[in-house]
Amino acid sequence: MSAIDFSIEKKDGSSRARLGSLKTPHGSIATPIFMPVGTQATVKAMTPEELREINTQIILANTYHLYIRPGHELVERLGGIHSFMNWRGPILTDSGGFQVFSLGELRKIKEEGVTFQSHVDGSYHFISPEISIAIQEALGADIIMCFDDCPPYPAEREHVSKSMEMTTRWARRCKEAKKRDDQALFGIVQGGMYRDLRERSALDLCETGFDGYALGGLSVGEESELMYEVMDSCSALLPEDKPRYVMGIGTPEDLIEAVYLGYDMFDCVMPTRNARNGMLFTSFGRLNIRNACHAEDPAPIDPDCGCYVCRNYSRAYLRHLFKAGEILASRLNTYHNLHYYLSLMEGARKSIEEGRFSQYRQEFYQRRNGLGPGAGGFS
Amino acid sequence: MSAIDFSIEKKDGSSRARLGSLKTPHGSIATPIFMPVGTQATVKAMTPEELREINTQIILANTYHLYIRPGHELVERLGGIHSFMNWRGPILTDSGGFQVFSLGELRKIKEEGVTFQSHVDGSYHFISPEISIAIQEALGADIIMCFDDCPPYPAEREHVSKSMEMTTRWARRCKEAKKRDDQALFGIVQGGMYRDLRERSALDLCETGFDGYALGGLSVGEESELMYEVMDSCSALLPEDKPRYVMGIGTPEDLIEAVYLGYDMFDCVMPTRNARNGMLFTSFGRLNIRNACHAEDPAPIDPDCGCYVCRNYSRAYLRHLFKAGEILASRLNTYHNLHYYLSLMEGARKSIEEGRFSQYRQEFYQRRNGLGPGAGGFS
Repeated sequence: MSAIDFSIEKKDGSSRARLGSLKTPHGSIATPIFMPVGTQATVKAMTPEELREINTQIILANTYHLYIRPGHELVERLGGIHSFMNWRGPILTDSGGFQVFSLGELRKIKEEGVTFQSHVDGSYHFISPEISIAIQEALGADIIMCFDDCPPYPAEREHVSKSMEMTTRWARRCKEAKKRDDQALFGIVQGGMYRDLRERSALDLCETGFDGYALGGLSVGEESELMYEVMDSCSALLPEDKPRYVMGIGTPEDLIEAVYLGYDMFDCVMPTRNARNGMLFTSFGRLNIRNACHAEDPAPIDPDCGCYVCRNYSRAYLRHLFKAGEILASRLNTYHNLHYYLSLMEGARKSIEEGRFSQYRQEFYQRRNGLGPGAGGFS
Repeated sequence: MSAIDFSIEKKDGSSRARLGSLKTPHGSIATPIFMPVGTQATVKAMTPEELREINTQIILANTYHLYIRPGHELVERLGGIHSFMNWRGPILTDSGGFQVFSLGELRKIKEEGVTFQSHVDGSYHFISPEISIAIQEALGADIIMCFDDCPPYPAEREHVSKSMEMTTRWARRCKEAKKRDDQALFGIVQGGMYRDLRERSALDLCETGFDGYALGGLSVGEESELMYEVMDSCSALLPEDKPRYVMGIGTPEDLIEAVYLGYDMFDCVMPTRNARNGMLFTSFGRLNIRNACHAEDPAPIDPDCGCYVCRNYSRAYLRHLFKAGEILASRLNTYHNLHYYLSLMEGARKSIEEGRFSQYRQEFYQRRNGLGPGAGGFS
């Protein structure tokens, strides 16, 4: 018996896009969906109420960061992550694998697990598949992820192959270690940009059996086209009746292509991080609010956007806030960018429901550049 | 005909405290009132909606900062400060006098006005009483302030006397220069800690006649007791039927004492700035959220507080956010501290209405330290 229940409500006629419903212990999610990233048990600059206001359905929190600070045991003693951060909807935690990979020289990987140094105080730590699951069970998210090894890109086939095989063994250990039955466990497909290794990984994970399947190790420096090829080939191998999650992507284009290829869930720091740097997403492309051309512009960020920020603030004011280093700049920019990402997925769901996703995708590219899908797109 | 209309609704029986109603072009204010500081056309970390949620009635914006960035002419072209920052309630702008005084070595004061260097880019600027009024008319606040010279503390009597006399001459020039009839102009009483100079200043300003009167140059390093003495003596000299404003104060104790002495309006960066440093105000005194003792504390900041933050977040979570450097820490701490200041004044108004302000003041001190008013209090 799985802690979640996934059903496909509608399939798009001319692509692999699908409209799904994912029931979790903390509520139902309509897919495809973007998950705002709440690394340290807060989606940077946002309150839970604001997240709800822009129709956030599920958020992601980072196991590595919460393990380091404030500690998973503290979170558990305070009632778990939902209660701790006052977000009562669904939560997914990553496994810490990618975060530890990102530490570079600070970590050492063995079959048993990974030894690494904290980015906060340099102290030494060890995380194994079993420990990752224990941490994620203490945090208490609705969906937890297998501990994986993420090879760099580019990397030798031999290296990627061994890493992928270890990730598969780790996935079995994770499933074995899991105790709570109110959490779903997703496997993570690795294999770098080698299509056959990805296929091997996907098939082995499916044989073990998980509540959902993710692609890890993408958006690590490869060309979009290559990433879409990997997504394309893996999608065909993953079971229809389980949620498919591409981790750590991406641009609005990436999300549209991933939905087109049959994926259901996505997360990325791009909308939140870029917001804090003044880079805003609009229906006509990206806009840098720092630019002098916005200094006296009374227009909203995006005249076609109906969000709180676009209804109430001018580009001139937003540029002033950014130049003045005001916290409200990060707040309003984040609110708008997340609204953009969530609306993009809402539009995708609606278009799948109405059997016109390919048209939605076409219009998305037309609005942005007057052209069809870019070099990386599938047409 | 004044742009504002002030009426006293009720006087406290056993003190000079008064309940007032101040009508401005952007709405009515019940006094005594604390004005959150929105230096750069934003109350740091807060949206206008949140300010309304905690019953903010009027905010203050800083003329010097807005003159420097983004420029008063830009604000004017964008429809004035209310529209620019999306705050549709009353606004008061200071004159820039105190901010320029704070620049220290970067400014040079003459009878004509003040030459100073921008804190942003070091460029040279000149502000006279006439220019200050022109800037404030471009910004378009409901209440504007006379340009004043603020002597340091301590300072020689001779220095303070000359400075005060120039401030009086500047006040007349401000009144003369003022063109807009939809803005009220307040005079600023100076004179340092010399009671007779303060009296001279107050009487001269009253003779010229302003829509309201402020005390400037307080809370600049002097003992609380000395500040309260100055407030006490000036209050008696200022007209009953005009609003009285003590600029730049202060602690919760300062506000209670100022209300007791017959003052109506206050502003201070303390609740907002301290919030960003983790210092929180409560009914039982101050609390530093950084302290390790809060690490696992599931209690709210103040169990007697009904604000959004105290209803939804634990000290443990707030400490985590602060330690992790999260923007939400500044947001929630600011929200709580401003709510505290505004509630303190709301309680003061209610107690004046019910003829029990002295009791309210007594209880305020008792809750905080189990004692009556401190050394600086008036009992």
